[in-house]
Amino acid sequence: MRRWNGWGDDAIEFALNEDALAFLRARVGPGAAIGDATLAQACAAIGPSRLAPHRLIDTTPALRLQNGLGQSLPDWFKLRYGKVGAVPDGVAFPESAEQVRELLHYAERFDVAVIPHGGGTSVAGHLTVAAGMRPALSINLTRLCRMRALDKQAQLATFGAGVFGPDLEAQLRAHGYTLGHFPQSFEYSTLGGWIVTRSSGQQSLRYGRIEQVFAGGTVETPAGTLSIPTFPASAAGTDLREMVLGSEGRLGVLTEATVRISKLPEYEAFHAVFFPNWAAAETAVRELAQAKLPLSMLRLSNQLETLTMLTLAGHKRLIGALRRYLSWRGCGADTCMLMIGVSGEKAGAVAALKSALAVTRGHQGVHVGKSMGAKWKQNRYRNVYLRNAAWEHGYVIDTVETAVDWPRVEIMMLAVEQAARDALGGQGERVHAYTHLSHLYAQGASVYTTFVYRLAGDFDEDMARWRLLKGAVSEAIVEHGGTISHQHGVGVDHAPYLAAEKGALGIGAMHALFGHFDPQAIMNPGKLLAEAGGLR
Amino acid sequence: MRRWNGWGDDAIEFALNEDALAFLRARVGPGAAIGDATLAQACAAIGPSRLAPHRLIDTTPALRLQNGLGQSLPDWFKLRYGKVGAVPDGVAFPESAEQVRELLHYAERFDVAVIPHGGGTSVAGHLTVAAGMRPALSINLTRLCRMRALDKQAQLATFGAGVFGPDLEAQLRAHGYTLGHFPQSFEYSTLGGWIVTRSSGQQSLRYGRIEQVFAGGTVETPAGTLSIPTFPASAAGTDLREMVLGSEGRLGVLTEATVRISKLPEYEAFHAVFFPNWAAAETAVRELAQAKLPLSMLRLSNQLETLTMLTLAGHKRLIGALRRYLSWRGCGADTCMLMIGVSGEKAGAVAALKSALAVTRGHQGVHVGKSMGAKWKQNRYRNVYLRNAAWEHGYVIDTVETAVDWPRVEIMMLAVEQAARDALGGQGERVHAYTHLSHLYAQGASVYTTFVYRLAGDFDEDMARWRLLKGAVSEAIVEHGGTISHQHGVGVDHAPYLAAEKGALGIGAMHALFGHFDPQAIMNPGKLLAEAGGLR
Repeated sequence: MRRWNGWGDDAIEFALNEDALAFLRARVGPGAAIGDATLAQACAAIGPSRLAPHRLIDTTPALRLQNGLGQSLPDWFKLRYGKVGAVPDGVAFPESAEQVRELLHYAERFDVAVIPHGGGTSVAGHLTVAAGMRPALSINLTRLCRMRALDKQAQLATFGAGVFGPDLEAQLRAHGYTLGHFPQSFEYSTLGGWIVTRSSGQQSLRYGRIEQVFAGGTVETPAGTLSIPTFPASAAGTDLREMVLGSEGRLGVLTEATVRISKLPEYEAFHAVFFPNWAAAETAVRELAQAKLPLSMLRLSNQLETLTMLTLAGHKRLIGALRRYLSWRGCGADTCMLMIGVSGEKAGAVAALKSALAVTRGHQGVHVGKSMGAKWKQNRYRNVYLRNAAWEHGYVIDTVETAVDWPRVEIMMLAVEQAARDALGGQGERVHAYTHLSHLYAQGASVYTTFVYRLAGDFDEDMARWRLLKGAVSEAIVEHGGTISHQHGVGVDHAPYLAAEKGALGIGAMHALFGHFDPQAIMNPGKLLAEAGGLR
Repeated sequence: MRRWNGWGDDAIEFALNEDALAFLRARVGPGAAIGDATLAQACAAIGPSRLAPHRLIDTTPALRLQNGLGQSLPDWFKLRYGKVGAVPDGVAFPESAEQVRELLHYAERFDVAVIPHGGGTSVAGHLTVAAGMRPALSINLTRLCRMRALDKQAQLATFGAGVFGPDLEAQLRAHGYTLGHFPQSFEYSTLGGWIVTRSSGQQSLRYGRIEQVFAGGTVETPAGTLSIPTFPASAAGTDLREMVLGSEGRLGVLTEATVRISKLPEYEAFHAVFFPNWAAAETAVRELAQAKLPLSMLRLSNQLETLTMLTLAGHKRLIGALRRYLSWRGCGADTCMLMIGVSGEKAGAVAALKSALAVTRGHQGVHVGKSMGAKWKQNRYRNVYLRNAAWEHGYVIDTVETAVDWPRVEIMMLAVEQAARDALGGQGERVHAYTHLSHLYAQGASVYTTFVYRLAGDFDEDMARWRLLKGAVSEAIVEHGGTISHQHGVGVDHAPYLAAEKGALGIGAMHALFGHFDPQAIMNPGKLLAEAGGLR
């Protein structure tokens, strides 16, 4: 069953062994677990619903809680400490576009804020209800989940936007196709959520970001239905898809999306390559990304992430042997791990891998074969469970991500990590920070940093620590010219930093655009953009 | 010198030999040339400028004429018959963003319409001044043409937006790079023009459409300067680049653009393959487009275009031998020609070509080697000159293009051609129509149809014929679910058909967006969108 106060399925545990815990203790000090609140305790604090009754709206407190929070660290604190604060006043599970329209009319009539809800995996506060806000309605879209059309000739499939990743892939796989969109949240996130937050999957090098596969769809907006037809390409003015992408629920409710699919790959493999140091590794991956080779994935961990991952993996003897081999090959304490993926028709994939390995050899890369790659693939959605395990031992894990052009990639990585390490100095706390480049482009790369630090054991103090850390790393991103998000979106947590990249004129343009579709400003207020007249 | 009333350089002639003329006569009847107006005659009809004097604005009639029309057939008629009608009241050639801002302030102060001008190659009426409109100022951007930055590490280059294709490529080539954007207008169109009309180059399969290479830039808008920073990718809300792409001068003047460049390819080749019929050819190119092979170009001519091109090429003996060979290999009267391009690192390009030829062989494709491909490359920008040559013999040539998903590609091709053939039946005129798929995608293809028919010899009658034909083919596009443009943009000629794909809600969103940047509505009125309150 899905955890109500953590990540994923409660039957899945990622155990931390004694070596892993010793590593964390040495890095940030001994952790102390807190006694988590129960669901009943958390629900007890939820006030009565302020919504006028409606046949489609359920106001059960547990349901309001489950739909009212995402997976950001503040969301976790609220759940684990049982201090959930404001939640939606009700939840609807529409089963048709007509029902969505009915709910929007209801919301306009009663001046209710609408929060569209997909899988609830946001780590940026997309689902947050602000304290003191007018009544809010969560529209949970997961009952809109069926494949409605499959056009094999055009390689297009149309789904209800609330379809979860595994369900979408299963429906396509039955016909020999895949969307190929595999963000780490894949198991619990939805197609619609990917689109409105501009998600990127682990194999985007082959399949593209969600922007490249979103071909058209239907959005129910307060001003009417926006239907976006599919074209392979068009020069006819503004691309309506781009109004929906990254709109984070501000212009309406995406009910249906048509996506570009691919034939299931004949062959797929992931291979690990180690480099002696960051400089060699970064040069190699930049060359790989610019070589236009048909790879499906490139993912480079820095020295600290490589060390952390190898230590937490748990297979002490195996990892020891690997490290001795790498050391003998010149990859010592500073070694950085690259994961290379190839997918597709076998001959082409094997040739691309061969070319890629030739590039890595030119930069002292040591290829250790595909067993580590297979392990990575097997655990691709499991690593998130580390967050649950760390919590049990009194540690919190958070992440931040950006993207920058190549000349600033290393500078950004160092600046974000340093900002994190310094952020809790006033509290006498250490932060263990490590980074990978999750997505590589000819122009630059995403920079994805993970932080581990200790739970304070007090809700207010933990929120304060998180704010300090989040503020410090976000400012480092802005200062070094990065985008405030490469793949997680803006929500409320990144909204204060958006103007740095859009400018006042750009922010105004977004307001003008959303205002056209949502003249009464009922859609997801406070998310993505701060409200001009203040949040109500 | 550049032709003032036709395409390209007046030193370049594309001669039609007797066989070619006999072919045209047989298809649409004997043509009769008209006596073209002289530049002096055309200028004589231009009224006095209505603009208040400004040091940056030149009101010389010849200059106003040269900047007031593009390359659409109505534009040609106006020039050739010496009935130019309304032209801009003045032309400015700003040399800096500051001067552009100064001109925008001037335009706002005096309520002057502003028409941004790049290379003037529009075939959709982007430069047209409507009769009875308030005074209009053409801002010619071609003095903003220098490379301002080159970042080899991020493979980014920044140019003044008025740089012409050959100049841009020469500046990059000096450093070993290319943009790889080669529309047929390449020699006379500009980077800024490509961006604001969503241009697509012949090798977009490798280098991407202009949307994929436009990384950021600066737009001077009446509401202020919009600066778009470069990121390799971003999930931070609405993509500001997408507000500029396809905006056709409606939100401001693009002064500077940063583009994603590539290393000059080590190897490049174009190969011709013939198929016995359309069905085999279309199946083959769809399979090729969906195979994700690293090709740089796919361009498929239908039977009538193949016939026309081979006949007009002029090398009677050579072509005769080719046809006998093809016929012996099973490609007779219905044969269709495919051009395949590969570019890049030699081993990869050769391997991709080999894989592609294997696919074509599976569909009865006959590979005739690369000499025809080399010829195609040599003439890639020469075929447009056919328009000049045909005119001299009393024939006009026009084109229309769209894009649709695969299941409708053939239906669209047949419908557009048939609509064209029927359009002038009431006039007792025949239209020779032929088609190629210029850009191929996994999802579908562009459908690019050329028409040849006879000049009437009378301005009004020629305009009437064009209107009939344009209306008929545009309606066929809309009826069969195509976009009104795949690569030429909307301008005034396609504007009436835009609502069919955007919907009233989408059109309203575009108005809201542009209105934010241009509250006084001075920017390129009447283009792309019809004015809500009528054109003034």
